[in-house]
Amino acid sequence: MSETNYIYLNRVDSPDDLKKLSVSELKSYCDELRHFIIEQLAANPGHLGSSLGVVELTAALHYVLNTPYDQLIWDVGHQAYAHKIITGRRDRFYTNRKLEGLSGFPKMSESPYDAFGGGHASVSISAALGMAKAATLKGEKREVVAVIGDGALTGGLAFEGLNNAGASNTDLLVILNDNHMSIDPNVGALKEYLLHISTSRHYNKVKTQIWNMLSGVPRLRRLLQKTGNALKQGVLQQSNLFESLNFRYFGPVDGHDVGMLVKVLRDLKEIPGPKLLHVLTVKGKGYKPAEDNQPLWHAPGRFNPETGELLTPADLSAPPRFQDVFGETILELARADKRIVGITPAMPSGCSLSIMMEHMPERCFDVGIAEGHAVTFSAGLAAQGMIPFCNIYSSFMQRAYDNVIHDVALQNLNVVFCLDRAGLVGEDGPTHHGAFDVAFFRPIPNLTIAAPMDEMELRNLMYTASLGRGPFVIRYPRGRGVTENWRCSLQELPVGKGRLLREGKGVAVLTLGPVGRFAAEAIERAAAEGGPSAAHIDLRYVKPLDEELLHRVGKEFSRVITVEDGVVKGGVGSAVLEFMEQNGYGCHVEMLGIPDEFVTHGTPAQLHRICGFDAEGIYRKLMKCD
Amino acid sequence: MSETNYIYLNRVDSPDDLKKLSVSELKSYCDELRHFIIEQLAANPGHLGSSLGVVELTAALHYVLNTPYDQLIWDVGHQAYAHKIITGRRDRFYTNRKLEGLSGFPKMSESPYDAFGGGHASVSISAALGMAKAATLKGEKREVVAVIGDGALTGGLAFEGLNNAGASNTDLLVILNDNHMSIDPNVGALKEYLLHISTSRHYNKVKTQIWNMLSGVPRLRRLLQKTGNALKQGVLQQSNLFESLNFRYFGPVDGHDVGMLVKVLRDLKEIPGPKLLHVLTVKGKGYKPAEDNQPLWHAPGRFNPETGELLTPADLSAPPRFQDVFGETILELARADKRIVGITPAMPSGCSLSIMMEHMPERCFDVGIAEGHAVTFSAGLAAQGMIPFCNIYSSFMQRAYDNVIHDVALQNLNVVFCLDRAGLVGEDGPTHHGAFDVAFFRPIPNLTIAAPMDEMELRNLMYTASLGRGPFVIRYPRGRGVTENWRCSLQELPVGKGRLLREGKGVAVLTLGPVGRFAAEAIERAAAEGGPSAAHIDLRYVKPLDEELLHRVGKEFSRVITVEDGVVKGGVGSAVLEFMEQNGYGCHVEMLGIPDEFVTHGTPAQLHRICGFDAEGIYRKLMKCD
Repeated sequence: MSETNYIYLNRVDSPDDLKKLSVSELKSYCDELRHFIIEQLAANPGHLGSSLGVVELTAALHYVLNTPYDQLIWDVGHQAYAHKIITGRRDRFYTNRKLEGLSGFPKMSESPYDAFGGGHASVSISAALGMAKAATLKGEKREVVAVIGDGALTGGLAFEGLNNAGASNTDLLVILNDNHMSIDPNVGALKEYLLHISTSRHYNKVKTQIWNMLSGVPRLRRLLQKTGNALKQGVLQQSNLFESLNFRYFGPVDGHDVGMLVKVLRDLKEIPGPKLLHVLTVKGKGYKPAEDNQPLWHAPGRFNPETGELLTPADLSAPPRFQDVFGETILELARADKRIVGITPAMPSGCSLSIMMEHMPERCFDVGIAEGHAVTFSAGLAAQGMIPFCNIYSSFMQRAYDNVIHDVALQNLNVVFCLDRAGLVGEDGPTHHGAFDVAFFRPIPNLTIAAPMDEMELRNLMYTASLGRGPFVIRYPRGRGVTENWRCSLQELPVGKGRLLREGKGVAVLTLGPVGRFAAEAIERAAAEGGPSAAHIDLRYVKPLDEELLHRVGKEFSRVITVEDGVVKGGVGSAVLEFMEQNGYGCHVEMLGIPDEFVTHGTPAQLHRICGFDAEGIYRKLMKCD
Repeated sequence: MSETNYIYLNRVDSPDDLKKLSVSELKSYCDELRHFIIEQLAANPGHLGSSLGVVELTAALHYVLNTPYDQLIWDVGHQAYAHKIITGRRDRFYTNRKLEGLSGFPKMSESPYDAFGGGHASVSISAALGMAKAATLKGEKREVVAVIGDGALTGGLAFEGLNNAGASNTDLLVILNDNHMSIDPNVGALKEYLLHISTSRHYNKVKTQIWNMLSGVPRLRRLLQKTGNALKQGVLQQSNLFESLNFRYFGPVDGHDVGMLVKVLRDLKEIPGPKLLHVLTVKGKGYKPAEDNQPLWHAPGRFNPETGELLTPADLSAPPRFQDVFGETILELARADKRIVGITPAMPSGCSLSIMMEHMPERCFDVGIAEGHAVTFSAGLAAQGMIPFCNIYSSFMQRAYDNVIHDVALQNLNVVFCLDRAGLVGEDGPTHHGAFDVAFFRPIPNLTIAAPMDEMELRNLMYTASLGRGPFVIRYPRGRGVTENWRCSLQELPVGKGRLLREGKGVAVLTLGPVGRFAAEAIERAAAEGGPSAAHIDLRYVKPLDEELLHRVGKEFSRVITVEDGVVKGGVGSAVLEFMEQNGYGCHVEMLGIPDEFVTHGTPAQLHRICGFDAEGIYRKLMKCD
């Protein structure tokens, strides 16, 4: 099917257009929509698998609901591509995730159809309940629907939402999009339970009977509305986890049968109170390579849509990804020290803990999408003498902040936090940028905070942390490093000691992490072009700071430039400034980093430029120093 | 019973001593222990209700377990007074919550019996699972027991722990201490469910049958261990929420029948895997006034143990508590503006939202112990045009950090965050100090952050925020204000504008919040004693800063002293310093506030003095400026 062959797709510029189709035309529309998504993502990388899984569900929802008056909230919004295409953004979809293009997630400011933004998991039920309550208070009769994956459902926030909604007597439909997957296969007791109720014959039989009663006989349906409580007390109440929480449970239904979905969603509109519809979908549905290897095709990069060949094959001579350096190094450390264990909240392939998992499954813990638990669980392990390496993306660590403070830092436990995806991550945009971690961790007592400038530094910081140095944060970015031969022998990097990379005069450039490479380039260029011959210090640690080195800087330099891939407010520059002030040095400190605004999506290089801390930005700053 | 009449209490200095008692003596011991707690807390205020509720449970646990080798983790540790008294701290119990005395919570550094610290709710299952996994990895055979209240169970972290533990095949006992209460009556679907299974005859009958089988016939018990799965698939699997999560559920049992508890706990030791024992207790058990009014007696202050008369009665002429100013003012605002609603995570009486609840129950939402949900639910309300006032204690706001960033700030929604208990709270100590909020919120774009110096300022800031000024944080302390006639008419305080309270020369003192009163006192004293005649500015807003005023300060003063009841690193002082540096002012900025360490417990005045920002500390700093 080539672009010109689309019969239905090009006729649909809004949910109103969709409603003009018959149900059988809707089915053809879905096929075209699926084809369009594959075609688009082959050229413009994005989240393929989850978007393919909800094509029919999305079409059915917009077919039945009166969006945007009715409100549709997508949990972990990278499943919302079909939603964007249906709601008037088909023509711009080629700009998805590009600078100034569409966001890869629902975004309130982008479209009235995006009722609530969402890049982090598990928020949809809480937000939907708030919106439903607002409708009640305002006397509006709106449908409010949250679509949440079985992966996101393991997040505690989703349970808090269910618990509150179940007691609220509010009209609310939660759709459980059950594909047995997060990015990796889903884990936990809930997963087993969902599998159980999806496959249990007896259970399905009871549900089918109730369902048939309900759909076939309007009088019975009305009766059910009135006698909901009695029914619950009888058949349902004790038979289902969701009904334990006072949700009416329906399903499971086939999430790829668009006709059935339309029918079910119409019926459910009639039923008041909190309801949950269990929909079974297949991640990557309709594209065989994606169905066959779901983790790989979660976000596959560019590919040949005909053959399924990935077009960004591994370049064996390229420098490694930081995440793989983490994965290889923790395995190496764990082989030498029995106390070392690895913890990830549902990101084994994303953070490459999978490398250790393959060899030591019993010492690796994928705890599901549950960042808070990942940290407190790690604290429990550390309280018993283990050295847990808890790997959480920087922006997701925001979800475990209190656990770090209350369970780890206050008790001064040996937990090593590896913050992957620290700094600007690029195309995923503001929900995923790891912008705040230095600023939010720096005020916490007992923490050590470090960042490696390259792969060897990452290895050595991990080794240093593994020696049991109290709570230890190591932040490192998404993407590749710079070194081919990175498998250095391990050595301790004394805590709170930086390194002088280049002697200089007048100006000292202080950097933390890989931005040090931008600085090095800028310094050489400025020096070559008649600018200052600046000194360059890689701080390595922002907490504790290298006071000896900073005293030298305070005494010998009149100007300091700090560079960090993180927010300036409260970050590395602020730390250096506090030191200089508290020690009475009069040097000027210019702070380069992420400004006080949410940074958009785009390539990392574009965003570094916008924020002014790429090599060019540092060079310009240096040239102004003379 | 007077102190000298204790027969058993004084013989027990450790769990080993406890084990020497017969079960009937254990019952008498519990009576004495309860009496001792009442007697102690009458004179030295603390958490009475929850501690009285677990006297028998605590005694039974230490009687059956081999603590501290076996590990006992108390969720929300203020229920752990009996635990502290049994484990060798009876003689020091009079120092509870006092400076240099016992902590009011379990604390690892205080006793080997305190297996894990706990001041915040819902952490115990995650920590216990970590400890149990560590035991498995180390080949140790320990019992690991988490005691969690039904209130704490509504926190999402607890669910994350259950979900992970249920799939883990790890030996772990979770004891659900079900008293139907948080500080206030518990809310949510889970509460209703627990009540349902506690009172359902059929359910109890089935459980009793299984229980009898289990206890009476060792062979059957062994059989059960082997055939656990088959049993689950049959009777249990679909009949219970906890069994849905693969926990074996036992109970409910009477939590005040110490003999029964001993028997049950012994039996449960034989059963492998994740288990949950449902124990019914009464908050305040055995002390009628406390049983009759459980919220009041959660932490009643001093009282007459004979009569139940509270000895810190309301002084009607005293200035109001800040929390009551919040409660009265939100009611007033809500009466004038239909968009205003109130949200609290299980703290209606703690934050005085109860005042509005009484008059407008439909516009107030107690969402249970669920801070993350409270914030995202508020975001949903705001997305639909409401103006939610979400009141969360500062230290608990750490649990909703990502929700503020991802769901509110990024979408620039009109949510007003009222952070009660900001700054050092006193006797509750480091788990409860609101030390970090300015530092962790200041780096977040779109937020406005303010603090009132007194009650009228609080009212006016609330009014200003209610006008829809984007995400708006107002932090204010625990305890009373200073003004009797605080019911001023409401006026807008322009965002980002501070106020000059006193003209001066040479030194400017910049303060945020009620510490401004310490500064005013110190400035007058210093000026009177020949020190500098310092200017005093109440910043009101730390974000955005009052740039106009700060430019004046930068130009006219050579020294600045900042004072805040929060961490110095990244806080108010840091913000002022960043401004001065970025604008090229050379004035020295000295920063007073909480240093980079966890501050202990004690009275607020003691802690202010220790941190050096009471009036005396500011005075001394001023006198050094000349």
